[in-house]
Amino acid sequence: MNRTIEELITEMTIEEKVSLIHGNGLFRNGMVKRLGIPSLKMSDGPMGVRNEFADNAWILVGTTEDAASYLPCESAVAATWNTDMAYQIGKVLGNEARGRGKDVILAPGVNIIRSPLGGRNFEYLSEDPFLVEKMAIPYINGIQENDVAACVKHFAVNNQETNRMHVEVLVDERTLNEIYFPAFKAAVQKANVHTLMGAYNKFRGNFCCESKELLDVILRQEWGFDGVVISDWGAVHNTKEATECSLDLEMSVTNEFDEYCLANPLLEMVKKGEVSEDFIDEKVRRILKLIEKLKIGCEDRKAGTYNTPQHREVIYQAAAESVVLLKNADNKLPIHINKIKSIGIIGQNAEKIHSNGGGSSEIKALYEISPLMGMKTKIGGNIEVRYAKGYFYEEPKKEEHNWQETSLEDVINKARVFTKEDEEAKKMRKKYLDEAVQLASEVDEVVIFGGYNHDYDSEGLDRENMTLPYQQDELIKEVLKVKPDAVVVMIGGSPIDMSAWVEDAKSIVWGWYGGMETGNALADVILGNVNPSGKLPVTFPKVASDAPTHYFDCFPGGETVEYKEGIFVGYRYYDTYQVEPQFCFGHGLSYTTFVCSMEEVTVKEEDELKILVSVKVKNTGNIAGAETIQLYVSSKDSKVQRASRELKGFKKVFLHPGEEKTITIMLGKEAVSYFSVEKKQFCVEKGSYEIQVGTSSRNIVKTNQILIEKSYMYK
Amino acid sequence: MNRTIEELITEMTIEEKVSLIHGNGLFRNGMVKRLGIPSLKMSDGPMGVRNEFADNAWILVGTTEDAASYLPCESAVAATWNTDMAYQIGKVLGNEARGRGKDVILAPGVNIIRSPLGGRNFEYLSEDPFLVEKMAIPYINGIQENDVAACVKHFAVNNQETNRMHVEVLVDERTLNEIYFPAFKAAVQKANVHTLMGAYNKFRGNFCCESKELLDVILRQEWGFDGVVISDWGAVHNTKEATECSLDLEMSVTNEFDEYCLANPLLEMVKKGEVSEDFIDEKVRRILKLIEKLKIGCEDRKAGTYNTPQHREVIYQAAAESVVLLKNADNKLPIHINKIKSIGIIGQNAEKIHSNGGGSSEIKALYEISPLMGMKTKIGGNIEVRYAKGYFYEEPKKEEHNWQETSLEDVINKARVFTKEDEEAKKMRKKYLDEAVQLASEVDEVVIFGGYNHDYDSEGLDRENMTLPYQQDELIKEVLKVKPDAVVVMIGGSPIDMSAWVEDAKSIVWGWYGGMETGNALADVILGNVNPSGKLPVTFPKVASDAPTHYFDCFPGGETVEYKEGIFVGYRYYDTYQVEPQFCFGHGLSYTTFVCSMEEVTVKEEDELKILVSVKVKNTGNIAGAETIQLYVSSKDSKVQRASRELKGFKKVFLHPGEEKTITIMLGKEAVSYFSVEKKQFCVEKGSYEIQVGTSSRNIVKTNQILIEKSYMYK
Repeated sequence: MNRTIEELITEMTIEEKVSLIHGNGLFRNGMVKRLGIPSLKMSDGPMGVRNEFADNAWILVGTTEDAASYLPCESAVAATWNTDMAYQIGKVLGNEARGRGKDVILAPGVNIIRSPLGGRNFEYLSEDPFLVEKMAIPYINGIQENDVAACVKHFAVNNQETNRMHVEVLVDERTLNEIYFPAFKAAVQKANVHTLMGAYNKFRGNFCCESKELLDVILRQEWGFDGVVISDWGAVHNTKEATECSLDLEMSVTNEFDEYCLANPLLEMVKKGEVSEDFIDEKVRRILKLIEKLKIGCEDRKAGTYNTPQHREVIYQAAAESVVLLKNADNKLPIHINKIKSIGIIGQNAEKIHSNGGGSSEIKALYEISPLMGMKTKIGGNIEVRYAKGYFYEEPKKEEHNWQETSLEDVINKARVFTKEDEEAKKMRKKYLDEAVQLASEVDEVVIFGGYNHDYDSEGLDRENMTLPYQQDELIKEVLKVKPDAVVVMIGGSPIDMSAWVEDAKSIVWGWYGGMETGNALADVILGNVNPSGKLPVTFPKVASDAPTHYFDCFPGGETVEYKEGIFVGYRYYDTYQVEPQFCFGHGLSYTTFVCSMEEVTVKEEDELKILVSVKVKNTGNIAGAETIQLYVSSKDSKVQRASRELKGFKKVFLHPGEEKTITIMLGKEAVSYFSVEKKQFCVEKGSYEIQVGTSSRNIVKTNQILIEKSYMYK
Repeated sequence: MNRTIEELITEMTIEEKVSLIHGNGLFRNGMVKRLGIPSLKMSDGPMGVRNEFADNAWILVGTTEDAASYLPCESAVAATWNTDMAYQIGKVLGNEARGRGKDVILAPGVNIIRSPLGGRNFEYLSEDPFLVEKMAIPYINGIQENDVAACVKHFAVNNQETNRMHVEVLVDERTLNEIYFPAFKAAVQKANVHTLMGAYNKFRGNFCCESKELLDVILRQEWGFDGVVISDWGAVHNTKEATECSLDLEMSVTNEFDEYCLANPLLEMVKKGEVSEDFIDEKVRRILKLIEKLKIGCEDRKAGTYNTPQHREVIYQAAAESVVLLKNADNKLPIHINKIKSIGIIGQNAEKIHSNGGGSSEIKALYEISPLMGMKTKIGGNIEVRYAKGYFYEEPKKEEHNWQETSLEDVINKARVFTKEDEEAKKMRKKYLDEAVQLASEVDEVVIFGGYNHDYDSEGLDRENMTLPYQQDELIKEVLKVKPDAVVVMIGGSPIDMSAWVEDAKSIVWGWYGGMETGNALADVILGNVNPSGKLPVTFPKVASDAPTHYFDCFPGGETVEYKEGIFVGYRYYDTYQVEPQFCFGHGLSYTTFVCSMEEVTVKEEDELKILVSVKVKNTGNIAGAETIQLYVSSKDSKVQRASRELKGFKKVFLHPGEEKTITIMLGKEAVSYFSVEKKQFCVEKGSYEIQVGTSSRNIVKTNQILIEKSYMYK
């Protein structure tokens, strides 16, 4: 593009302009060859660069070069509580996207995990807006360093899959600003995200992609976003409304590109004078600006690459840091292989491949190390590693779906039904169960790999409950009877009801959809090559009915869903309403021990409010490890209802045996404010606050009272 | 095993002994639990540890943990002319075998590549016995360092697939000793190989696995082999003969294990007194010794591992060093991507996966980087990489075969027929051809990836000719018409007739079945990230009818095959009979230039004959590279017919730009001897010899005459 953006806009015909603002391939907009304006090439999604579809049909290209590195799911990245890891993972994703020739990678998803039953939870980071923000910013920076646009999604309040295409979300102003908006606002203002994806659902009477309130007022005017707003695929419904709001690019799932709202229907309206061309110019201007920002066609644009050993090393590290040791009675773990002759691996998730599922985040992984392979490669050939499937799960036949004709919901539903109870299933389950129990009785150690898979953790469909599919509870209980110290590893992207056996199991490990190296990471934790350091980014309630959305009876709703729990999402609910979770937010054990103490809290109220918290942490055990120091703030004197604690700071500290470090975390005004609906601003009240230092939301080791003497307000 | 071997033999019943000397699973012998004697677990093959079959049926276990690292084929390893690389590759293979719990890995294949049409050529090292020996020794050492047995195969004169189960090989004594035996003898005497596989074919009236001459006289008595002789799968036919010769373990493809010759039929003969139990004790003794050597059940046995990044790094290095730059007119290669905007990749081998084919050497690769993926990952997202299939090849449907019922020959034959000419194929070929030519005319650079695949390079079936399948000649010619500087890359494990376009193509690159990193290696060579240094380990004749076996009309024979060419195998034939090859043995170009000179030749005839040859080699170009100095010897005064030159020494030298090194290669009596049929010994004759220093068998840069004053004889 040798001309300026304004010159280009002047030269373009209305047809050319319109071609730029709607999909003209399933993953690209149109182009204006005459003026050298290229298409923006987009790709799903957070877990790696998706395989290639034909330009205009949901048919996989199917050649061998579109396999890519398979990244840990976003919840796993959040579970590292390591902001540098989020940056490294973003960098890998951006580098691979660029290497595959993409301009926009449709990640990260920063929606709040509102319910344990949300189908897409694994694609999101946390139930806590502070943790989401702190991880999303470096993740986006990592992506965009590669001259690729991140696309923060799905704006806004897109927290469920049920009725996702049309459900209207009712949510109060304070909750929006304290819980659901912060990550998007931070992406815009602190990470300079280049694009944002509008959600499917409705917000205050409009579809999100047609909402002046969301896109014009909040996003553009209040937050100052000047990047490109892309619709979710098929989220635009009304030509006039979409044109006249700040949406820039309509994408969809059909290949009748000319029939998109912002295609021929828009051209007709323009010709009839029913809509001003100025709106279109604005969109085109932002798209051309994006092309400039990304240096498309410039010699100094970064070229990227994919499938490198360096990428895999980062992915391994992230996976290893994401594993959460939930329980470890009698220091059962790690398993010392020099003391055993045989090990039994039980449960189909030991060998299950997860990369090819989950909806739009599915990818064609270059490879995926299953837990069984990980265990075998790490154990070597001298110890007998035996495997029993344990529960009845048959791989549903993978067909190519044409998303124009088949809904993702139907596909997933079919997979779930497929595994339901029938005579054949009963027989097979008995067979597998007997085999597993027999195996467990014959070996020195047993590790069970169970949990969910992407028939349960998936875009398109929420779960009805939190129970283990395939009657795994029975399997685990029966195995524990013959092998009381069997290790239980749960794979999943959402909390699981473990109440049937949680007391009986000595050791419980949580593994996510951890990417291509997940089996190595899990094996290294189980065998003690890696000291686990993951912390839960979501609360695991005991049972689904403990969840706030159940208490307030507001999930998943019907045509509308009212977020009646308000700000009491996740631990804000469990802690304030005193509901004991199974495993609390921020929880995660280590093979070593740490002692933490708060050294000093200093409050400075000069130009700006600053609260400096110094914490001393020492590794008092015999092996190296990492502890994540978490700072929670509790407001004692507020005139509004507050959560009993809110996460406002954290730092992951790596320590050698015996090593001690003092870290200082600075909190600002955001740490003590609430959003005032009246004043439409964030307010800091005078009064006393409690600073809590913990290693989880429920393991607070020190508290300190502070007094704030001035009040503040800010946008 | 707490008892001594002799105690164990005394304690064992005849049934227990017999259980040890025949297959009791498809890849293991029997065991004697009562005495703690385990089965020997075996696995194919040279290109990686094969996927797991059920113990007693040709059914893939099909879980995810048996994917393994995919190694370059043996011809590729030989093409590196780097003995340390052979060691490293052997080490990886042994480490993976051990990691997968194996005791014996059925590699390396050291049969001489006798004909360009041999189906299994890619699994073998070279046409030259010296090169085979020098690469096989470190390869075996590498394997066996892992407490895993190598199994050198297939003994002996197993040089074709046609009638492989029963063809009788007629070959003279001198040729046997000079050409076909040296690698086996070196494996036994210089590499201490633990096991050896007897071949399918017949030798002097007996099947190889029942040949007293081969196994008792030559292998045991003359060479002193005390390891285990394992039959090829199904190579034993006669109970008495197999029992009374030095075969130790009968393996086969059927699961009627009790019906194996060395099972119930043997027990019956023992009971009837028709065969002495002493023969059985001998076999058992050697098997028990092997168990001891491998430290099976011992605490200090190495455990191995598989699928590590370190393994992949070795595999990449070997692949990169194996690529042979056959032709590079006008320094067309490498392609400088900073000068181009688009590149066209043409030919289905660009995206073809080869790891899953070839017969017993097929493996389930953890991944395989196709050339198309390699090119894309190395080029990055800024240059348009377009692909056209170019020729019509449809992936034959992979079915699971029961090798008891279906012969490999039938399967491969079907695949070849599948791709033959019909109306549909004609139409598709035209379509692909047109697409390719169109693409070639639109891009800045073109690289064609063609050649064979494992429907052509395969166990079970030789080729009928050397021509390119799928009418690729036409494709290449048409593309060269519109893009005269298109680079041609041939993938294969055997010479290809390139006469249709060899003069027209500026640059020709030879890539082997190079393992999981082959696409990266090829791309790095093409793009100049790696300076090619591979050298052909086989002669590429211009056409199949130039081959010695064609000249002497002795391939593949019928019920018998007579090796009428005698010692004149490979370049020994082309050079002596003055037949100009397309690309000669030892040939391979570089992106830099070298100057070599012979500095000094010293002959010492004290205790032992020593010929010291000093060669100076200098990198006179601008980039780092490697040259392989090759020493050939030519006998001038011999009373027997000699080849015009024989390879007797080589060294690969790595040099920075401008760097100069002087290397010294020591030749011994083997460098000048011939095998005397009369004296049944190797003889060194007095007289003059020519020492030739070259960078290929036909690029001799210096010669030097030496005089040997004494005659010698040795076994």
